[in-house]
Amino acid sequence: MSSSFAPLQNDTFLRACLRQATDYTPLWLMRQAGRYLPEYCATRAKAGSFMGLATNVDYATEVTLQPLERYPLDAAILFSDILTVPDAMGLGLSFAQGEGPRFATAVRDEATVARLAAPDLDKLRYVFDAVTSIRKALNGRVPLIGFSGSPWTLACYMVEGAGSDDYRLVKSMLYARPDLMHRILQVNTDAVAAYLNAQIDAGAQAVMIFDSWGGVLADGAFQQFSLAYTARVLAGLKRTGVDGQIVPRIVFTKGGGLWLEEMGALDCEVLGLDWTMNLGKARAIVGASKALQGNIDPNVLFAPPAAIEAEAKKVLESFGRPHTDRSMPGPTHIFNLGHGISQYTPPDHVAALVQAVHAHSRLMRK
Amino acid sequence: MSSSFAPLQNDTFLRACLRQATDYTPLWLMRQAGRYLPEYCATRAKAGSFMGLATNVDYATEVTLQPLERYPLDAAILFSDILTVPDAMGLGLSFAQGEGPRFATAVRDEATVARLAAPDLDKLRYVFDAVTSIRKALNGRVPLIGFSGSPWTLACYMVEGAGSDDYRLVKSMLYARPDLMHRILQVNTDAVAAYLNAQIDAGAQAVMIFDSWGGVLADGAFQQFSLAYTARVLAGLKRTGVDGQIVPRIVFTKGGGLWLEEMGALDCEVLGLDWTMNLGKARAIVGASKALQGNIDPNVLFAPPAAIEAEAKKVLESFGRPHTDRSMPGPTHIFNLGHGISQYTPPDHVAALVQAVHAHSRLMRK
Repeated sequence: MSSSFAPLQNDTFLRACLRQATDYTPLWLMRQAGRYLPEYCATRAKAGSFMGLATNVDYATEVTLQPLERYPLDAAILFSDILTVPDAMGLGLSFAQGEGPRFATAVRDEATVARLAAPDLDKLRYVFDAVTSIRKALNGRVPLIGFSGSPWTLACYMVEGAGSDDYRLVKSMLYARPDLMHRILQVNTDAVAAYLNAQIDAGAQAVMIFDSWGGVLADGAFQQFSLAYTARVLAGLKRTGVDGQIVPRIVFTKGGGLWLEEMGALDCEVLGLDWTMNLGKARAIVGASKALQGNIDPNVLFAPPAAIEAEAKKVLESFGRPHTDRSMPGPTHIFNLGHGISQYTPPDHVAALVQAVHAHSRLMRK
Repeated sequence: MSSSFAPLQNDTFLRACLRQATDYTPLWLMRQAGRYLPEYCATRAKAGSFMGLATNVDYATEVTLQPLERYPLDAAILFSDILTVPDAMGLGLSFAQGEGPRFATAVRDEATVARLAAPDLDKLRYVFDAVTSIRKALNGRVPLIGFSGSPWTLACYMVEGAGSDDYRLVKSMLYARPDLMHRILQVNTDAVAAYLNAQIDAGAQAVMIFDSWGGVLADGAFQQFSLAYTARVLAGLKRTGVDGQIVPRIVFTKGGGLWLEEMGALDCEVLGLDWTMNLGKARAIVGASKALQGNIDPNVLFAPPAAIEAEAKKVLESFGRPHTDRSMPGPTHIFNLGHGISQYTPPDHVAALVQAVHAHSRLMRK
């Protein structure tokens, strides 16, 4: 497939994903297009609902680019939701005002599990159209990241039917009927791989798998029910995008720090980390094989700018001296939050963070 | 102080806390006196409210002993709540039906922080009276564990005013006004040490510090705002109880697995672990200095008895071969859940767990 997209002007993020030296530490923020931005709220109001926003190509393009207008971020991420895939399976996703996501059909019994199938990708056409539209609108400014929930994380929502604070229903199935759980996870694996490949074909320049709920699993269960299926998704992904360039793959397991050694064996380029993990320790555990992404606590953004700057420096310093040799790959860090940005974040505090990361990471390379 | 309590008949739990060999792996369950037991619900209905139950010595004694009537558990734990201490500080604790705890006064501004003081222990007399009453009612069957929330965990509730899913308010204070946070934590430290010492004087034979929310902190912040204050509490604790016996101290940080090496340096006898940590790895990290307590996922109890048995064996085997040499201390394991038991647990599934742990751990020593 040939591409008519504009050439990339800022490749710092993609270089860091591939462990190539960069002039500064690139940065983007999970959920950077979101409710903390008044312009996002205005677009969402026009769209009427969250899914109205996510399924409209023009609106999705508009909100994806909004944070880039305010801040010199080094990547854009597709505006969408991790639950588009189970929605396309026919489970009926909705977002009630002030609540989290909810499915009309929860997947809890043998018959419902048996009926489950990877969705027709045509039902997700709005996502791929958004990817292409965003890519065009970016016009080469920064790369575009596509994403999906992990098979396990999708299964949590599909079985619980909504968010949960104890994961009782999904874990009950896991322990009582592992056969049903494995079938759901295999369907999700096929669906997620196809979904991400279609995003790559539509123009995504990197892809990220959000294993938001991997960290709630017991040791042993994590490896069997989350990590193994993430590995299968990775094995099914295209390695090059529409420009013929390598498409880096990022895996983020919230609360996954204890399993970092095992995650180091995944066939991906980048591991995302939450704020509980020390980046220096992570670098020592993962070794030279992967770039690391993360991991400041999003709540730091409620402190005054001077404190934000100090905490950003701590995170940069915890990773340690960045790689500067352009002749070979080496340890690289992509700055990010350890989880999505809070809707209550003051937008000017984000500016302080971006400024601090760019400035201090340049100094660290001197 | 001399004791008139009956001699202890089952010292398996206390021996394991002190890393002494035992015939089997002792077991108790966090929140073992609770809503999953119909007899508990009946007593609570008589008491009218949760605090009505906790503050009535006879009711607190009754519900503490209920799980021991059903299951051959190796320890009893005081029936109470971690929020009794901030309640006694005058913050006005209440439990609305179907919701979590709530404080009438949240500690969020400079003036409220300045007014905060460790409570008059007379306001917690009902807790100490319950300890003595339970100890008498136990009549030496098994040891009684006293407990408190950690300074950080109490601070979370005091600042948030209730439970939280993002800890935004308490972390905002931590990052924006660390001086206020340190003052709250120091007041809590003094209060928790005095509270636990009074429980020891009233008859508690072991004490446990629940750092339920330590795991939500960032690396660096955990050490400074949670671990350091837990260490100060430990430094202030009595070492012997009313019988002249050593009182083992257990520290449990939910989500604290990544900091186990640093927790290994705490001056306590036992570290509690949640289900994300592999017990064999934990044993290797902590070394010979401490017993380990935990860590099956409470959701395993929703599986059929055969699956519960298999998972219990996995947890026992993950710790590895237990210490059997009675001439010297060595690695010991106290079986527990990785967090409190769910209110939806079928009581007969608990019986299956207790039976499996006792039987299989005897076999492992053969």
